[in-house]
Amino acid sequence: MKKHNFSAGPSILPQPVFEQAAQAVLNYNNSGLSILEISHRSPAFVAIMEEANQLVRDLLGIGSDYEVLFLTGGASTQFFMSALNLLGDKQTAAYIDTGSWSAKAIKEAQRYGNVEVVASSKDANYNYIPKEYAVPDGSRFLHITSNNTIFGTQYRELPDTRVPIIADMSSDIFSRPIDIERYGMIYAGAQKNLGPSGTTLVILHKEMLNQTGRSIPTMLDYNTHINKKSAFNTPPVYPIYVCMLTLRWLIDQGGVAVMEHRNEEKANLLYEEIDNNILFEGTTITQDRSRMNVTFVLKNKELEEAFLDKCERAGIVGIKGHRSVGGFRASIYNAMPRESVEVLVDLMKDFTAKNA
Amino acid sequence: MKKHNFSAGPSILPQPVFEQAAQAVLNYNNSGLSILEISHRSPAFVAIMEEANQLVRDLLGIGSDYEVLFLTGGASTQFFMSALNLLGDKQTAAYIDTGSWSAKAIKEAQRYGNVEVVASSKDANYNYIPKEYAVPDGSRFLHITSNNTIFGTQYRELPDTRVPIIADMSSDIFSRPIDIERYGMIYAGAQKNLGPSGTTLVILHKEMLNQTGRSIPTMLDYNTHINKKSAFNTPPVYPIYVCMLTLRWLIDQGGVAVMEHRNEEKANLLYEEIDNNILFEGTTITQDRSRMNVTFVLKNKELEEAFLDKCERAGIVGIKGHRSVGGFRASIYNAMPRESVEVLVDLMKDFTAKNA
Repeated sequence: MKKHNFSAGPSILPQPVFEQAAQAVLNYNNSGLSILEISHRSPAFVAIMEEANQLVRDLLGIGSDYEVLFLTGGASTQFFMSALNLLGDKQTAAYIDTGSWSAKAIKEAQRYGNVEVVASSKDANYNYIPKEYAVPDGSRFLHITSNNTIFGTQYRELPDTRVPIIADMSSDIFSRPIDIERYGMIYAGAQKNLGPSGTTLVILHKEMLNQTGRSIPTMLDYNTHINKKSAFNTPPVYPIYVCMLTLRWLIDQGGVAVMEHRNEEKANLLYEEIDNNILFEGTTITQDRSRMNVTFVLKNKELEEAFLDKCERAGIVGIKGHRSVGGFRASIYNAMPRESVEVLVDLMKDFTAKNA
Repeated sequence: MKKHNFSAGPSILPQPVFEQAAQAVLNYNNSGLSILEISHRSPAFVAIMEEANQLVRDLLGIGSDYEVLFLTGGASTQFFMSALNLLGDKQTAAYIDTGSWSAKAIKEAQRYGNVEVVASSKDANYNYIPKEYAVPDGSRFLHITSNNTIFGTQYRELPDTRVPIIADMSSDIFSRPIDIERYGMIYAGAQKNLGPSGTTLVILHKEMLNQTGRSIPTMLDYNTHINKKSAFNTPPVYPIYVCMLTLRWLIDQGGVAVMEHRNEEKANLLYEEIDNNILFEGTTITQDRSRMNVTFVLKNKELEEAFLDKCERAGIVGIKGHRSVGGFRASIYNAMPRESVEVLVDLMKDFTAKNA
């Protein structure tokens, strides 16, 4: 039986993607070769890389003033690589701290320049997105984490600043339209809305580059990967291929505006149940609730085990909350069908009928 | 029709691995989940990572004084990361230059310490492995490229030194037994004998670490990945899973001693034909010939197109030589069946019968 997979990431991908991705491992495009054994210099893979790049551009409305790269090392590598490439020793960058991922980005950037943390929601265990702060004029960029998977918060509106924004969008990229002009850089580990783990998407405005005067190891220099179209060394062929399939699926579904509408509906369905059900409550302030990661707890913690058991019996997996928040977390990325959210909501109702 | 895949990498993997790897994309271990959607913190993936680690240890006879890591970024990342972690600003390391990959490793290491290139075969377009050189006493390590995919050379014996060796074994790891005690570190991009592209194996003697006093970004510090068992951040789940399947296959075949025997037989078969066939000749000196990448040319270059055409019609792919050498390159890694080498040899005989 196919499970209802609410994991925070790696996470659910569209079922048709799994089917095509499996077939390609046996025989890619009827070539007599597995996708796992084709050269990264082959016309077949060059075409996959080009299509993935173009689909990212089409979905987010990205023009030729931005570079689109498929790298490795996850967002964790971008935490330092972005600052290494974009923030000079004597330059200032502003950061907003909305949880563990922001905090890690801040820690790594501090090696390379003057990092000003202009706002933080740490005082309330990161249950909100800060609203009142000033970004210093002359900052090279303002770094944000657009969605926090652990605490279940998400920016609804971009910060009010003219400074170029760098966003770690690992957990909400392609979940809604974006105003690309506001961004100096976007990065995202693939393993939520984009594909399986093993590749990292980087979108970079050309004007952000080459302003630090710093000498950088070849593999850490964005210019290396720009000049070689993300294939300076052997790229992660299969993860990029599965991303390309997922991006095609996104286009077929109608793109990111359609996704936003569906994601809002799915999230509302679940948040309404959390708010109306007397046994449960949400963990973040209402206006900053994430539409990707819905965090909630049982008011009576002693019922937790029973609820998790009931989920398991219903084929619901990945619902246990992160240890920093406790309780439960339902990650409802693009590929999550509304039907699975309904299964969860019905189960919560039934649980309360029996335990209230 | 299944092709005879002589690509240098990504390259052929065992057919049973493709079959299991495809099934896991649809439904991993009958869990109702695709391997692409399972959490890297799930018991299922933790077990895969542990098994892959143990299989590497079992196959190469590696004890607890070494760490075994699955990272990302390829050998190209290890070129600088090894020196960043292991070579202090005022320390000396020796390097042997046997081709493009060595040269890149040398270039990146020069950022971090005193790099002495103790020998090079550049004078003869890298068609041999240097034999006469001295490694300075007190060198932190001696870096070698154990097999050169482009020029088709391979170390038959390790350099005569007491200095710990660091070897880039990307293209011949698991092709033969090794004397692990001689190595301070081994690294290898997965995409030849180990698995698909997307992960990098690092084997590291514990005593090599923490001798530079250098502060290192979290993701570039080997200690980070050691402390978190290669899962500090989200690892490339699928590439590591397919490596684990390939390592299981290696054990089932009888291990690296059996591989060495088969690889020697396959290589001899092809080199004999190159030496006996009046139209062809090898490009490297006989005693340093690689058993992984067999490089050869047609004495009459005008016949090249015809030979490549004939190969294509016979289902032979990936046989074109690298532009630095020209001609042909037959990569005959562990997973290459003897039958495919026989097809190539028969085709060479037939080509000569018709064109000599």
